[in-house]
Amino acid sequence: MTMSILTNILAITTTLCFFTNSYQPKPYYHSLYTSPSLTNNESISHHLYILTRRPHLAGTTANAEAASHVLSTLSANNIQSHLAEYAVSLTYPDSRSLKLTRPPPEPPTTFDLQQVVYKDDPYADVADQVEPTFHAYAKSGTVNGPVAYVNYGRVEDYTTLQETGINVTGSIVLARYGEIFRGDIVENAYEAGAIGVLIYSDRKDYGGGGGGAKWFPMAGWPSSMEGCERLSEDEVEKAGDVPLIPSLPISGADGEQILRSIGGVVAQDDWQGDNDAPVYRIGPGPGVIELSYKAKQVIRTIQNVIGIIEGREEPDRFIILGNHRDAWTFGAVDPNSGTASLLEVAERFGKLQKKGWKPRRTIIFCNWDAEEYGLIGSTEWVEENQEMLASKVVAYLNVDVAVAGAGFHAYATPQLDQLIIEVIKQVQDPDNSSQTVYDSWVKAIENPEIGRLGGGGSDYVAFVQHIGVPSTDMSFGSAYPVYHSMYDDFVWMNKFGDPLFRRHLAAASIWGLLALKLADEEILPFNYSSYAYELQKSAEDLETELSGSSNISLIPLFKSIEKLNKAAVRINDKIKEIKEKNRWEFMWKNENEACRMREVNDRLMLAERAFTDQDGLPERPWYKHLIYAPSKHDNYGSKGFPGVDDAIENANKLNTKDSWRSVQHQIWRVSRVITQAALVLYGELT
Amino acid sequence: MTMSILTNILAITTTLCFFTNSYQPKPYYHSLYTSPSLTNNESISHHLYILTRRPHLAGTTANAEAASHVLSTLSANNIQSHLAEYAVSLTYPDSRSLKLTRPPPEPPTTFDLQQVVYKDDPYADVADQVEPTFHAYAKSGTVNGPVAYVNYGRVEDYTTLQETGINVTGSIVLARYGEIFRGDIVENAYEAGAIGVLIYSDRKDYGGGGGGAKWFPMAGWPSSMEGCERLSEDEVEKAGDVPLIPSLPISGADGEQILRSIGGVVAQDDWQGDNDAPVYRIGPGPGVIELSYKAKQVIRTIQNVIGIIEGREEPDRFIILGNHRDAWTFGAVDPNSGTASLLEVAERFGKLQKKGWKPRRTIIFCNWDAEEYGLIGSTEWVEENQEMLASKVVAYLNVDVAVAGAGFHAYATPQLDQLIIEVIKQVQDPDNSSQTVYDSWVKAIENPEIGRLGGGGSDYVAFVQHIGVPSTDMSFGSAYPVYHSMYDDFVWMNKFGDPLFRRHLAAASIWGLLALKLADEEILPFNYSSYAYELQKSAEDLETELSGSSNISLIPLFKSIEKLNKAAVRINDKIKEIKEKNRWEFMWKNENEACRMREVNDRLMLAERAFTDQDGLPERPWYKHLIYAPSKHDNYGSKGFPGVDDAIENANKLNTKDSWRSVQHQIWRVSRVITQAALVLYGELT
Repeated sequence: MTMSILTNILAITTTLCFFTNSYQPKPYYHSLYTSPSLTNNESISHHLYILTRRPHLAGTTANAEAASHVLSTLSANNIQSHLAEYAVSLTYPDSRSLKLTRPPPEPPTTFDLQQVVYKDDPYADVADQVEPTFHAYAKSGTVNGPVAYVNYGRVEDYTTLQETGINVTGSIVLARYGEIFRGDIVENAYEAGAIGVLIYSDRKDYGGGGGGAKWFPMAGWPSSMEGCERLSEDEVEKAGDVPLIPSLPISGADGEQILRSIGGVVAQDDWQGDNDAPVYRIGPGPGVIELSYKAKQVIRTIQNVIGIIEGREEPDRFIILGNHRDAWTFGAVDPNSGTASLLEVAERFGKLQKKGWKPRRTIIFCNWDAEEYGLIGSTEWVEENQEMLASKVVAYLNVDVAVAGAGFHAYATPQLDQLIIEVIKQVQDPDNSSQTVYDSWVKAIENPEIGRLGGGGSDYVAFVQHIGVPSTDMSFGSAYPVYHSMYDDFVWMNKFGDPLFRRHLAAASIWGLLALKLADEEILPFNYSSYAYELQKSAEDLETELSGSSNISLIPLFKSIEKLNKAAVRINDKIKEIKEKNRWEFMWKNENEACRMREVNDRLMLAERAFTDQDGLPERPWYKHLIYAPSKHDNYGSKGFPGVDDAIENANKLNTKDSWRSVQHQIWRVSRVITQAALVLYGELT
Repeated sequence: MTMSILTNILAITTTLCFFTNSYQPKPYYHSLYTSPSLTNNESISHHLYILTRRPHLAGTTANAEAASHVLSTLSANNIQSHLAEYAVSLTYPDSRSLKLTRPPPEPPTTFDLQQVVYKDDPYADVADQVEPTFHAYAKSGTVNGPVAYVNYGRVEDYTTLQETGINVTGSIVLARYGEIFRGDIVENAYEAGAIGVLIYSDRKDYGGGGGGAKWFPMAGWPSSMEGCERLSEDEVEKAGDVPLIPSLPISGADGEQILRSIGGVVAQDDWQGDNDAPVYRIGPGPGVIELSYKAKQVIRTIQNVIGIIEGREEPDRFIILGNHRDAWTFGAVDPNSGTASLLEVAERFGKLQKKGWKPRRTIIFCNWDAEEYGLIGSTEWVEENQEMLASKVVAYLNVDVAVAGAGFHAYATPQLDQLIIEVIKQVQDPDNSSQTVYDSWVKAIENPEIGRLGGGGSDYVAFVQHIGVPSTDMSFGSAYPVYHSMYDDFVWMNKFGDPLFRRHLAAASIWGLLALKLADEEILPFNYSSYAYELQKSAEDLETELSGSSNISLIPLFKSIEKLNKAAVRINDKIKEIKEKNRWEFMWKNENEACRMREVNDRLMLAERAFTDQDGLPERPWYKHLIYAPSKHDNYGSKGFPGVDDAIENANKLNTKDSWRSVQHQIWRVSRVITQAALVLYGELT
């Protein structure tokens, strides 16, 4: 064991060298990160105030100014920063009109479609900078037809209508917002034969107007500043990537007035409003709607702000923190509570750097643009850097809305579950200083669960669903009344959302601590046993769902999950062994040891990539991840095996041999990607 | 500079430790590798003799025995080895008949379709184990029709026929072998309306019968031993992956006899045979062919032999040497001259290991099965291990035929050009001991060129064209008279191909030395300037080709190549800087330095991957590499930008706005992958 003793001597010598350069062990910096000496709620509230002084829709001067603020704050904190700009197609409303005609003697109503400036609103002077309510990429045109009520406009709602014998062809449908993504409400309506869509916020639910097209620009490619291939409008429409009928978000009051004009069958109980609401009927008619919408389509420059703290030992491994900056209106909740938290993380990391800390791996801050237009900024950047990101990104940590109220919510690819729990055990609950975020979280919910990232709701989409990067998303609070309205401003946040900015601080603590552990721990804090467990649950659910369909075999799926589980156990043992060994060898590592550790880390990092398949989901090839992706008819819905689910939906409808064979084929495809992930994690060739 | 001095002291100490363990510097082993003390031509000829005792088509016992020989030889040389088995669908001929009817008074001829056992053939006793000549996966059936001569059966040959006003619909076509892949001869004939195909070897060319289906199983997935998804025969046919009309390879003599039965127009000069041949006419008829072929389709187990020497410093970076073992008959040339060379490399590496050598990176020996059936063995293995291979393989070094005669030929992805030249400067020419292989190579050919790997001819296909691995292929000799015939045996090799086995030794020297440098050099010996240069040439050729088509812009393509060139220059400078530094720091490296070197190596390794695109080529999505792939109508043809070439072929035919727009779209796609490669090589985020 001569070598080993020599190694230890070398280790001590080298360690001493490190100390003379005033480095401290990593845990020292990690504790410091959440200590009161580093946190600053005045600064965080100031950032939010500055970011939300004016409405700042993507492509506007106000949003470019907000970008400057982010850039200069990052730079001031010793973070190398630059803008990544793209010229993209955006739409703004040009003209809108909405008229309701009822049977005599009722007079026709023309709606004014305005959001009301309340008394003493400090932002009254810039209220005219708020764009009128509209849906991004909505189809221009004038349509005229009887109005029909379709509940949330989900596929199942149209099935209900069909079963009741009600046909909405040629109608304008009125849907209440919630349950599914607004882009899908329009798509489902189009498929049911409707010619126009109105979406209102029912008092029974929370929420409001807003916009965003479902697919665009996801099947695209980077639009760099120096010229790129562009599709014609015609080609985009043919590809089915944009809405094909006009639509408009309207207020709850306007929605209720239109509802009163609908006659016919009374809607079933769960389609009704709250107790004060009128009885909801389905129609169509007798109320007739004339909806007119005209969009301006423009090419505008959008700006992602990118900031980099280069890793000392592994500069080519990236931990990315991402949040978008563009807002429908002022965006104090959505998304700048997240942006303010991002800047708080940056300031704390700046202070840590001054005290000698340097991350082991590279940390990248991404402040995205044009999220509300369909995740454009993040998608462009990921596509442009795709090959590099696929080989270097360890994890992507998203925060969209950081604070909308009280109560912690987390979403993750399952290998990160354990790390999230570890981190929230180290952060004080902002609403109850006697306990941790973890304590409150487990108490508040009967079966506390970390959600999954199969939805299409925020900028993690390109990372998880296109290239297969382990990711997290989180927030304090969930549904909130000012969503996407002009009342989502600093006043609301300061009064209702987070008066003392403690929730913001807690969000920054959790987010930064996740990043620090991922960036600094020698062995990546991933646990794939959770992944195998999650997949097993989903497979069992699928088994129950398919119990009637005798000819479908789930054996390959269960076998692949078993392989993944074995591989997870094996690498967990290996990690224990390495940690045990490293305990006695201090900080120093020679090339050989470093490379072997890196080999284990690469397996942990790349296993997630293996869940992607080059061909992607049927009819939606941009979505490569076969476990987590939106389901076909709901962009927000996150299901277990989206390709299998879609095939089952189709087979249940057609009930042909071929359609059931497709179900089996999709099960094989999922089994194969899980097997690939198991092989990568296991690390040995067949 | 205290740290630096300390580092040097540590370096010296550690270096001494290495020497006490009897390690020598890497260049010592590399010289030893090609020294006479390590090379052994008796052993190499013995291996070839053992491997070719019996015909060993894929799926036969004889081929399984050959696998055992490879496995035990690898194991005996301290190479960890195992079998990777797959149950795959193979076809063998069940019955064949061929009858020619001519106008009276000529009598009908029934051909015996036998290869003749010559006098004193030492393999006469096992000649009945040679399967009758057939095409793998040929369609079973009986067809009857006038015979037409179609030269090589290329797309341009059918264009010539069309221009001459000759229609081959309903005919059986007679094509001479050569120029294009046999699978494409059948496919082109089918598309021209022919109902059957006969392929003969014209005396004017060399070559002979053989088999192999073009696409199958390339769009497949791993067929592991424990059950996998299988397509029905019907589904395979619909996918267009197998020949759809019967075909048969016949001898030159039979071909000539059939040619004499064809009347009509005299074929143009370059369609004619040599001076002794009769005048070739096109027909169809009056000769009438009745062709009957029946295949046995069976599921058989095929066996890849995999041997691993684990790398000491970077076990998770792979250098793979690959050669197939299965042969149409005895396979002394194709492929077992390559297999014998592989075993020679293994024996020399075994000896190096005894002398203390251990590679820096992992070296893997792959002896493939079922190559002749359409690269099945290598394709299955690559697909099964795809995710792992994509992140770990540094280079794939293929040898199919190692020796078919004199004269060195090399093929490579361009970043390996420089390494090949460096290596052949270090190996003595087997046919002229006064000079190196390099000297003979440059003298023999006016503009010595390294070929490219865009064809579909051997097992590099899955590595280069599906996952984007830097690769080489090489041989001594090229066309040879016993190709795929029963005369390709040890007797022929010993008498004509390589009487002293010096060419085999040289092949092993070059192959092994390539592997050693790739496995041992700290910085990967890749030069992407050659790649940029090659792409620039191809782009200029394209510019010339398109000079008439005013609306196509090549600016994005040239721009992307410029970016790649810049990135290549930059990383080459970086490499120089690292090498300069390393010169003074001996062998020792700390974690930080090791990781930074690895970062550069990863850029070099992964830039090739970036030339692949997830969607692959139009209509051929399995082919992901947008630079090197077969062209649509010739599997052997290796062109610059296959997707662009196919689009131009189509646009020239249709000449519509849409078809030219497709050309532009394919140019954009190529430009984008080159830009991705440049970004990966450059190593910085946008």
